Amino acid sequence: MSVIYQKVALIGLGLIASSMARAMREHGLAGEITGHARSAETRATALEIGLVDKVFDTAAEAVDGADLVVLCVPVGVMGQIAEEIAPHLAEGATVTDVGSVKRAVIDAVGPHMPAHVHFIPGHPLAGTEQSGPRSGFASLFVNRWWLFTPLEGTDPAALDRLKSLVTAMGANVDEMEPDHHDLVLSVVSHTPHLIAYTMVGVADHLRRVSQQEVIKYSASGFRDFTRIAASDPTMWRDVFLTNKEATLDILGRFTEELFMLQRAIRMGDGQMLHDYFSRTREIRRGIIEAGQDTDAPDFGRVPKKGEG
Amino acid sequence: MSVIYQKVALIGLGLIASSMARAMREHGLAGEITGHARSAETRATALEIGLVDKVFDTAAEAVDGADLVVLCVPVGVMGQIAEEIAPHLAEGATVTDVGSVKRAVIDAVGPHMPAHVHFIPGHPLAGTEQSGPRSGFASLFVNRWWLFTPLEGTDPAALDRLKSLVTAMGANVDEMEPDHHDLVLSVVSHTPHLIAYTMVGVADHLRRVSQQEVIKYSASGFRDFTRIAASDPTMWRDVFLTNKEATLDILGRFTEELFMLQRAIRMGDGQMLHDYFSRTREIRRGIIEAGQDTDAPDFGRVPKKGEG
Repeated sequence: MSVIYQKVALIGLGLIASSMARAMREHGLAGEITGHARSAETRATALEIGLVDKVFDTAAEAVDGADLVVLCVPVGVMGQIAEEIAPHLAEGATVTDVGSVKRAVIDAVGPHMPAHVHFIPGHPLAGTEQSGPRSGFASLFVNRWWLFTPLEGTDPAALDRLKSLVTAMGANVDEMEPDHHDLVLSVVSHTPHLIAYTMVGVADHLRRVSQQEVIKYSASGFRDFTRIAASDPTMWRDVFLTNKEATLDILGRFTEELFMLQRAIRMGDGQMLHDYFSRTREIRRGIIEAGQDTDAPDFGRVPKKGEG
Repeated sequence: MSVIYQKVALIGLGLIASSMARAMREHGLAGEITGHARSAETRATALEIGLVDKVFDTAAEAVDGADLVVLCVPVGVMGQIAEEIAPHLAEGATVTDVGSVKRAVIDAVGPHMPAHVHFIPGHPLAGTEQSGPRSGFASLFVNRWWLFTPLEGTDPAALDRLKSLVTAMGANVDEMEPDHHDLVLSVVSHTPHLIAYTMVGVADHLRRVSQQEVIKYSASGFRDFTRIAASDPTMWRDVFLTNKEATLDILGRFTEELFMLQRAIRMGDGQMLHDYFSRTREIRRGIIEAGQDTDAPDFGRVPKKGEG
């Protein structure tokens, strides 16, 4: 493939940025890649492992002359970064972000963007439980969705160019209205993460069951929750604070539903439980068919035959 | 390895029984394996794929002359099966079960057991989201815990013999008091499953977010819940009905904790959320160190480099 942007600036050098850097290099999509991270340690690591061509101490320096700027910082600091880089953005540059919440990013970043740049909010639905500049890998976005929530009056050519970058990294592209994005993500991502954190927290507090027991016997369901609950705390704090309304809405529905099942358990209503547990199997089948998960038992993490 | 039991009868031919059959054959641990399943279709499948040596229409016939009988049926029907097989059990036979709840199984099965057999309740903490006679594989128990909750006065030799069978299949063995078992499992397995079912149910009901969207965008967290919520409905109905007290106890704690986090979101208490999300990372580290999960990103289900 050929170069799509001459100079890409990655602001924030965690899992997403480092995966983008690797993917852009592997497919030759960027002429030059610059980077900035707030932490000196992260900047040193990025240089050491050759993640980007140049690392700068400030975001303003990193974006100088870039035709694509990608904000890969927690949602809570996007506005501050936008303000800082605004005077240094090149004429005709595209600015995008990878935040998990879109309305709050638009409200925080939008007002700072000069008229001569294209601000196109985005969100790759890809990630792992790991974080930091060493955690990235080129195939992170393969067969994953990259959502864009373009504002009214977005230049179609700038949007197409950005889409061609992410599809060249293997992603599928979709467009969505920002508020709908935040609601959908609250259902498929934000609320599940909060629930996983809560369940792990309960296990951590319970005195009658030791942490040693929780760890030893986790293969019976709990460990899947702990993977989700090992995600980056700063990123997730910001997600909940900035997607407050949708999260509280979905949490309310979750609690209602949980109380209904709790009541069925208390009353011994086996029929209701069986019906409920049968319906949820259908959704799983849909996800496998849509290629968004593997149907290998246990995600394929079963030991190979003969290992025992 | 050498034969540990001359004739093993598997009552119920789902994921656990079919995995036991494969593991016992692979390691040559049983002289002969017989089986029984309530459904004619399951019996036919078991014969067709050569899972067991002989399949019987009744549990009573299957246990005839067996020196080990394994009850692999849902917890809710264990008592009825025990009553049915009791008059047919051989002198000195060992009877065990693989139910996820132990107090209820002891109460249901125990009274039917004749004095001339060894009844040793057990629970392998192993499983996948799949069920039925075709879903088993020999390595299911490798490096997984197999818990026993022996009753007072259990013959040590009979217990040792049973332990040697499950360790020969690759499992680690532990003993526990039945009520403590039910509480621990409520934390690490039963409540997490109920919560996963609930979250998937919420997504299924929500009209403003289509099922198509839920499926398409599930890679952002939701799909891990759907895997758990694809488990066998009958098995799980019985688990909740028979481990009612511990489940309601842990659910109560879960709800309290969730309300506290919900309040922190509503009040914008970022510090509290960040602290909470940081603590849960520790437990994850413990699980990886204990060899109960992989630290490969995303359970290793990431596409290989170059696939994109």
